[in-house]
Amino acid sequence: MSVIEKVREKNPLIHHLTNQVVMNFTANGLLAFGGLPIMAKEQLEASDMASIADGVLINIGTMTQFDLEAFLLAGKKANERNIPVVLDPVGVAATSFRKRAVTKLLDEVNFTVIKGNAGEIAHLVGVNWKTKGVESADGDRKQLEQIALQVAKKHKTIAIITGEVDVISDGTVVKENESGHIMLTKITGAGCLLGSIITACLAVGDNPLADSFEAVSFYGEAAERAVKHPGVNGTGTFIPYFLDELQR
Amino acid sequence: MSVIEKVREKNPLIHHLTNQVVMNFTANGLLAFGGLPIMAKEQLEASDMASIADGVLINIGTMTQFDLEAFLLAGKKANERNIPVVLDPVGVAATSFRKRAVTKLLDEVNFTVIKGNAGEIAHLVGVNWKTKGVESADGDRKQLEQIALQVAKKHKTIAIITGEVDVISDGTVVKENESGHIMLTKITGAGCLLGSIITACLAVGDNPLADSFEAVSFYGEAAERAVKHPGVNGTGTFIPYFLDELQR
Amino acid sequence: MSVIEKVREKNPLIHHLTNQVVMNFTANGLLAFGGLPIMAKEQLEASDMASIADGVLINIGTMTQFDLEAFLLAGKKANERNIPVVLDPVGVAATSFRKRAVTKLLDEVNFTVIKGNAGEIAHLVGVNWKTKGVESADGDRKQLEQIALQVAKKHKTIAIITGEVDVISDGTVVKENESGHIMLTKITGAGCLLGSIITACLAVGDNPLADSFEAVSFYGEAAERAVKHPGVNGTGTFIPYFLDELQR
Repeated sequence: MSVIEKVREKNPLIHHLTNQVVMNFTANGLLAFGGLPIMAKEQLEASDMASIADGVLINIGTMTQFDLEAFLLAGKKANERNIPVVLDPVGVAATSFRKRAVTKLLDEVNFTVIKGNAGEIAHLVGVNWKTKGVESADGDRKQLEQIALQVAKKHKTIAIITGEVDVISDGTVVKENESGHIMLTKITGAGCLLGSIITACLAVGDNPLADSFEAVSFYGEAAERAVKHPGVNGTGTFIPYFLDELQR
Repeated sequence: MSVIEKVREKNPLIHHLTNQVVMNFTANGLLAFGGLPIMAKEQLEASDMASIADGVLINIGTMTQFDLEAFLLAGKKANERNIPVVLDPVGVAATSFRKRAVTKLLDEVNFTVIKGNAGEIAHLVGVNWKTKGVESADGDRKQLEQIALQVAKKHKTIAIITGEVDVISDGTVVKENESGHIMLTKITGAGCLLGSIITACLAVGDNPLADSFEAVSFYGEAAERAVKHPGVNGTGTFIPYFLDELQR
Repeated sequence: MSVIEKVREKNPLIHHLTNQVVMNFTANGLLAFGGLPIMAKEQLEASDMASIADGVLINIGTMTQFDLEAFLLAGKKANERNIPVVLDPVGVAATSFRKRAVTKLLDEVNFTVIKGNAGEIAHLVGVNWKTKGVESADGDRKQLEQIALQVAKKHKTIAIITGEVDVISDGTVVKENESGHIMLTKITGAGCLLGSIITACLAVGDNPLADSFEAVSFYGEAAERAVKHPGVNGTGTFIPYFLDELQR
């Protein structure tokens, strides 16, 4: 049974500490895929929520000082319970607040997977990858492979660099995925929802590298199928068909 | 004139203190239905907002400590002004923070309606209804009727338990609604938007039990109509057609 | 080259301090139009974010006390860097918290454009325009022209009053736009997204009055085109087609 079939069978409960822009889209996307979303950010319940979840996703897109405390509590509880915890360091290189927060998160939590675009992941090993804002950039594939290997090794994690080619490494092996569609770069939250779907796969699987690859590959293929629908004539009409395809 | 026709005639202004996941969907759904949404959460204006509204909805889905203060202020002002105030205790049984918050809300505010799934409403009378996460569960219908009766009596309110059959009670009578569609359990915020639509009906009606029933029944029928549309091929495509049907 | 063509060529990065209801819709709308959204609200990074942006939008729809600090920091940094900063004073007349916050914003930041409905803009020159909630009202066109002129003069800005006719003034000239569709008043965030699109045009243009007019006119025309699509049968189905039209 593939990890995706397992998600549909077990309906893992994923606690999201994610950004306000993508909450609705992420919740609907994860429900379509087969997982069950919880979203909460109050630090007084962060640990309790992580205690009933099958996996935790931390996405710093609209993080506040208060959110950071909740992120740390949920992340530590996930480690304590040995459930997967995924970090999406959105726009980490953009401000010193984000840099400090991510340093703290990486110091105090062991992440099963860290995913982001080239600029975000490269920043984690001190490489200044040229990007514009929080959007992803493609670049030299060999260099991205080296960065993924380094991040995975340094942070004892699976590193996923999303882009035209998605590069995935556990610090030893590098896997690459070429499914996907440029439409995903023109809607908000495509990367954020992928983080949720990866977390759901990790929650039911037993091989983080293979499960991450399967999640990323499935996600790109769903976009490829959606974009072929005759009703799609732009990003607005793409979104509903893409959500539909996540349940196929 | 039905209470739904009255909503379309009077366009009640509903102040929402609701969760971040569903704000956009709720606002669009209420607008389609005929109400006017306000959404704000700052405690410094909670009372002022409740002073200009025709009804108040409190949904604890992503509640923070700060939000709770605003909930209390808006709820008390609604009571003072004798306008309807509805509680949706999302995931109340999941964490002690939520339990304490809901206890406080029930102590300090008289709710016109309390709505939730079986697990949430059962919790209010100390029954541990087995559910997974915040998703709704169906169960023994007789037991749900008893729970609705008890919650309504104990909290001097209309209790609404949503599920495959929706059970509604004022503490004396039990009414049941069978309209609806399983698709509503596969999108985020279907229950939350229903809370908004119930509040709008209460704001223009004069019989909370009958008006609640009419709202719940209408909502399920809108889902039934939407799902029949040939363009619907999953949850993603269901959402826009469902919003359309809320204005029929 | 029109200012809209320039947006598509330069993809300006717009920092949004906007309300939680419309974040997703605004981000997708701006992406469709050709801009790049950033959304963040933590005061510790407000100034840093404004330092990398090409324009800043401040929308007070769900503002908290904490948000206000971030608004002021981002607005001042925008002034310091001489990049456009737009204010959307959503519901300003509804509560004293909003009134005080907007007074402070107007005292400390020079806005390139202030946009809102008649009630919101009239409030800025002490006129009590009769509206219901935060929804827009149409009224005497001559009076709206006077209000736009006064607001623009008083606050040394471009004033935009949206409505059935959009009235735009720099304090000397008044321009009026008649494109648009009533459907825009029946979805949430239509005015908020327009604020984002205006900011993107200002960020790449050199004539704030002409650029604002072009943005408002384009936006209304996109709605007119979208509503003609045979798939549109209500507000739910309008939204995806409208997003599609923003990229035409």
